Amino acid sequence: MSGNSFGLLFCVTSFGESHGPAYGGVVDGCPPGMELSAADLQKELDRRKPGSSRHVTQRRESDTVEILSGVYQGRTTGTAIGFLVRNEDQRSKDYAAIAEKFRPGHADYTYWQKYGVRDARGGGRASARETVVRVAAGAIAKKWLKARYGLEVRGYLAQLGPITLGFKSWESTGENPFFSPDPKAVPALESFMDELRESGDSCGARVNVVASGVPVGWGEPVYGRLDADIAGAMMSINAVKGVEIGAGFAAIEQKGSEHGDEMTPAGFVSNNNGGVLGGISTGQDVTVSLALKPTSSIRLPRRTIDVRGHPTTIETTGRHDPCVGIRATPIAEAMLACVLMDHALRHRAQCADVVPPTQVHDGSKP
Amino acid sequence: MSGNSFGLLFCVTSFGESHGPAYGGVVDGCPPGMELSAADLQKELDRRKPGSSRHVTQRRESDTVEILSGVYQGRTTGTAIGFLVRNEDQRSKDYAAIAEKFRPGHADYTYWQKYGVRDARGGGRASARETVVRVAAGAIAKKWLKARYGLEVRGYLAQLGPITLGFKSWESTGENPFFSPDPKAVPALESFMDELRESGDSCGARVNVVASGVPVGWGEPVYGRLDADIAGAMMSINAVKGVEIGAGFAAIEQKGSEHGDEMTPAGFVSNNNGGVLGGISTGQDVTVSLALKPTSSIRLPRRTIDVRGHPTTIETTGRHDPCVGIRATPIAEAMLACVLMDHALRHRAQCADVVPPTQVHDGSKP
Amino acid sequence: MSGNSFGLLFCVTSFGESHGPAYGGVVDGCPPGMELSAADLQKELDRRKPGSSRHVTQRRESDTVEILSGVYQGRTTGTAIGFLVRNEDQRSKDYAAIAEKFRPGHADYTYWQKYGVRDARGGGRASARETVVRVAAGAIAKKWLKARYGLEVRGYLAQLGPITLGFKSWESTGENPFFSPDPKAVPALESFMDELRESGDSCGARVNVVASGVPVGWGEPVYGRLDADIAGAMMSINAVKGVEIGAGFAAIEQKGSEHGDEMTPAGFVSNNNGGVLGGISTGQDVTVSLALKPTSSIRLPRRTIDVRGHPTTIETTGRHDPCVGIRATPIAEAMLACVLMDHALRHRAQCADVVPPTQVHDGSKP
Amino acid sequence: MSGNSFGLLFCVTSFGESHGPAYGGVVDGCPPGMELSAADLQKELDRRKPGSSRHVTQRRESDTVEILSGVYQGRTTGTAIGFLVRNEDQRSKDYAAIAEKFRPGHADYTYWQKYGVRDARGGGRASARETVVRVAAGAIAKKWLKARYGLEVRGYLAQLGPITLGFKSWESTGENPFFSPDPKAVPALESFMDELRESGDSCGARVNVVASGVPVGWGEPVYGRLDADIAGAMMSINAVKGVEIGAGFAAIEQKGSEHGDEMTPAGFVSNNNGGVLGGISTGQDVTVSLALKPTSSIRLPRRTIDVRGHPTTIETTGRHDPCVGIRATPIAEAMLACVLMDHALRHRAQCADVVPPTQVHDGSKP
Repeated sequence: MSGNSFGLLFCVTSFGESHGPAYGGVVDGCPPGMELSAADLQKELDRRKPGSSRHVTQRRESDTVEILSGVYQGRTTGTAIGFLVRNEDQRSKDYAAIAEKFRPGHADYTYWQKYGVRDARGGGRASARETVVRVAAGAIAKKWLKARYGLEVRGYLAQLGPITLGFKSWESTGENPFFSPDPKAVPALESFMDELRESGDSCGARVNVVASGVPVGWGEPVYGRLDADIAGAMMSINAVKGVEIGAGFAAIEQKGSEHGDEMTPAGFVSNNNGGVLGGISTGQDVTVSLALKPTSSIRLPRRTIDVRGHPTTIETTGRHDPCVGIRATPIAEAMLACVLMDHALRHRAQCADVVPPTQVHDGSKP
Repeated sequence: MSGNSFGLLFCVTSFGESHGPAYGGVVDGCPPGMELSAADLQKELDRRKPGSSRHVTQRRESDTVEILSGVYQGRTTGTAIGFLVRNEDQRSKDYAAIAEKFRPGHADYTYWQKYGVRDARGGGRASARETVVRVAAGAIAKKWLKARYGLEVRGYLAQLGPITLGFKSWESTGENPFFSPDPKAVPALESFMDELRESGDSCGARVNVVASGVPVGWGEPVYGRLDADIAGAMMSINAVKGVEIGAGFAAIEQKGSEHGDEMTPAGFVSNNNGGVLGGISTGQDVTVSLALKPTSSIRLPRRTIDVRGHPTTIETTGRHDPCVGIRATPIAEAMLACVLMDHALRHRAQCADVVPPTQVHDGSKP
Repeated sequence: MSGNSFGLLFCVTSFGESHGPAYGGVVDGCPPGMELSAADLQKELDRRKPGSSRHVTQRRESDTVEILSGVYQGRTTGTAIGFLVRNEDQRSKDYAAIAEKFRPGHADYTYWQKYGVRDARGGGRASARETVVRVAAGAIAKKWLKARYGLEVRGYLAQLGPITLGFKSWESTGENPFFSPDPKAVPALESFMDELRESGDSCGARVNVVASGVPVGWGEPVYGRLDADIAGAMMSINAVKGVEIGAGFAAIEQKGSEHGDEMTPAGFVSNNNGGVLGGISTGQDVTVSLALKPTSSIRLPRRTIDVRGHPTTIETTGRHDPCVGIRATPIAEAMLACVLMDHALRHRAQCADVVPPTQVHDGSKP
Repeated sequence: MSGNSFGLLFCVTSFGESHGPAYGGVVDGCPPGMELSAADLQKELDRRKPGSSRHVTQRRESDTVEILSGVYQGRTTGTAIGFLVRNEDQRSKDYAAIAEKFRPGHADYTYWQKYGVRDARGGGRASARETVVRVAAGAIAKKWLKARYGLEVRGYLAQLGPITLGFKSWESTGENPFFSPDPKAVPALESFMDELRESGDSCGARVNVVASGVPVGWGEPVYGRLDADIAGAMMSINAVKGVEIGAGFAAIEQKGSEHGDEMTPAGFVSNNNGGVLGGISTGQDVTVSLALKPTSSIRLPRRTIDVRGHPTTIETTGRHDPCVGIRATPIAEAMLACVLMDHALRHRAQCADVVPPTQVHDGSKP
């Protein structure tokens, strides 16, 4: 399996560059017989689309997706699902100035060193625009998980720079351009972002993702742990620098008597484990939290070097998200959905004949 | 690739249970011609060995490793390296009491649900004793990385429960049973652990791992990112609940002007990225931080259910580490070394013919 | 790795159906810096194109390929190469009659049973038209192998039904629509095919493929053998029922004193092994031979059942190759090239530092 | 996945050398709850054991297998099954003479070139003794396939040098040291072998393997075809130079009207396809035929070169099978069983929810 594919059984392969003709992907391993249309993918793509508010990049992309294979008469056939999203608004001239310099915080220097060549236009393959492929693939996984298990994968913005956001309701997250779970916080987010944008700087964010309805038993021991695959998938998202499952880093200061989730016949009484014990799902909510670094492309001048190693400065004037975390929620949901679907298939491959002993409920939920 | 193997080219396969006859592993893909003996593996195994101080489990295991293949006349042949570590001190009677109950925080319930059967003796396959395999495999990776690139992978305990430990020197970490990088903090750690042990409770920890001397260019775009593979590998270690690269969760509150590491002809001036940009190594130190949850096996009584779903309580009286983080340092080093070696091989597979443009130095180091 | 991808490091992923909008593929792992354009792929696609003579299917497809990613300023960037071939001449009405019946010798019945649904139009995913993806991917592999190692992969038709063809020259194979290595045999092939077509029946064929210039040392022991991967890749081509390496089935009746290729300082004196010993290339020509079954779509009436299990008969009247072997030569070359390139990369990943002992030449060649 | 592992979900990893301390393997992905003991593996190992008649190598190995993990209270737990077979009768002195020379037909030269080092004792990793691992793994697959699906994998010697053997009954194959399906042919085989042994030469063989009771629907399209994986697995067996499925090479001279297996409500009327259409099992017997080359180790003097490239001659005087095909039957069965089990798991991963349309029977069987 090479670097542009992931998933063992529900396998996603991605291609495309920011300023090339198109992005596209191949989703292999989807069970047959599921209703699927381009609209299912489009709905999710629209959630991450650029240009949807003044707080995100103003690049104009309809992100219209075309399904090229794997669906016949409105249903999946079980064969590879190919799809394509044409790029529409490439302004490569924006990038002429940077072809000779390395933007701090970007992959410019590392790609140039690794490959000896690089497509400098908008980050080329390293652009976060690649996440269209993840979101399209995730839409397929989400649909199947919902239909087959009633499983839902939902995320929200938990922190924007210094502003932390308390969870109020899933409904709220869909009604504002920040995926804020607290509608009352939106004005504060807006003024923070307006100031930030004006300052020419950028900020980081935290995104939480929760999968509800995950059956007990998904995941494998040792290296194939569900949480290991989740961590890898999340860290593969552009700008992510940290991943937590359940209590995460707070577990460091917990005592065992506090952290270890007790059980009663009504279920687990807490969920510090984040829905995974020994790498295998417990039946509780799978809870994941991500740290996203501030956007590297900022208008403020920064020290760097050019391709000949000479010192210079750079200001990035293209169209960028001042906080990549704002559009990260659907991407993180997509990655979690893909990993869960992969493990759903892996689990039934090995354990389809297991008659599961009586299960307990998730007592950690109200 | 199934759950008990990891790595694409430097591939580790693991087997064994806590109270079975042996643990063992197969390391495939090691370059030929490297000097290797059981002593190389033993040296690392001794660093994670139980029973080395009163602060860790008193299980008596020599963890003696036998190499069964892949080495001829003291050198690797390029074929699969099989090795074996026999279990010596299984006291399965310690576990008779828990065969019918699920220990909170353990994989007991999830394995039982997934597989319909479980080896209840000491956690069976879910036991952290499996990490002997990782450490043995990591010893091979460490040796090769050092010999071939001068690369060093070293870790330390950065926090024990509430006590944070400042980095003083790598030498210190080897001279105390905590892997503390600050020798002066050892007495405080000892009294904290003595109290903790007496209380019957356990605590969490943070471990930091650093790889120095990583060449620029390792890692792949999109899903095969170096940091994604590191995150997955780290989260696969027993008890790990969070992983950070570079600035990690602190990046949330950073501004772009602070986080984005500037460059000068002398190199990067900081290392918020943790040695990875766009998934590819920058040539700086690769810095990783892990959160380990408190040991789930504690002497305090806890609510749980039995295999029939009835409420009960449980106290764990076997021999356990009151803080699994104490012995985690060599394990985390091993996992980082394995991932780096895998990517070293992957990189030269694709890019062996690239003549790397002039490199800059790591100005973020003094 | 799922069923629509192959190759560990040079990894090809394929999608598309005979009567869907397009075929496409993603080639991952290609080294950076190689000159590549759509014309390189087109040249090979034109060799397998339908409609090029009266002896093959009359479906009119230009098979025009578009490269969507992975190439910048005429050179590969090292990132995923996506490409697309739109279908142009789908006549799905040809297939209305067969949607309810299973064509003998086709995948109709097995797809229907496996997936519970099937795209009956032209075989859907099972159509041999999928080989456009293989040929496009193979063109990339061929170009790199030639540029990097001077390696050439060439094939020819060795037998058409009862007519065996002696090898005369590589030039001949390019100058006739049969890929016959003997130009004098072409009139006989033509009259045989004319009769066959008129009879409404079809015939099988043998195709030989030879890779010259393969360095010694490619391939891995045990399961990752070069010849094992070649056999798998060849058997994955539509209609292939047998694969031989070197002496192949003739080895059954050979004595060891005859089969085992002796060596002299001038090299091997024969090549019964087919360029592979112990799964690793010897430096001699890698020689592979394939058996292709007769086309299953014939005009003669055949007994079958319909989707309800009732007996019926079927005659296939669509546009078909009366001998799929005629167009198989470029496909077999492509598969061999892809496997060799994958192993070239795998070999240097592990063994880049090996200083190869003095090599002997291939004395088996004149 | 590296070269010493195979299988996507039922994954076998192998290690060991002919004159090292032991062979061993890890079988990952086996469903939990199946009764399994060392005796199950031993039974199959005894079928391929050396020294069982005067017609095979006289090396004395009990091939006693020890299961080290993955089985608890007599049942598989679903975790990795590790096993070990110690070498007992290494006479490395037999090989001292050849350490400096390359044996024609062996992997000596290719390993030496690839790795720069080689374990010359008995072929090291390239020895056919590695097949103990395959046979042990295959025993697990056979047991599960039989218990779960009633599926049987059986093979027989179909040709020994010039002597072809007609199939009489499965019982016969177990009652003679040749796995001859015709008991009456055994005296002829014995005198042929006695003469051959006396002559110091060796001969090739054909082995046929048949899987009965394979459900319709196993296998995947395009590259993940069941027959492609079978071909790869078979060609990975030492000495195999050719693989056929169904009609195999005979398909070249068949007409489509003859080859394409017609269907009636009673099932397929013939089985030229060998139980696989479009890469997916038909429900008929899966029939595979292998060509094995003559043993390369013969007593007759042969020309070769030494490690310095100088001409010399070699006679191999160690203990060898004069026809490796004689002991190949259980090995070929094992490989087929492993591939089928892998595909059984892969199939239910993706298609567990498919309600299969009414199936037809295998009318090609009496």
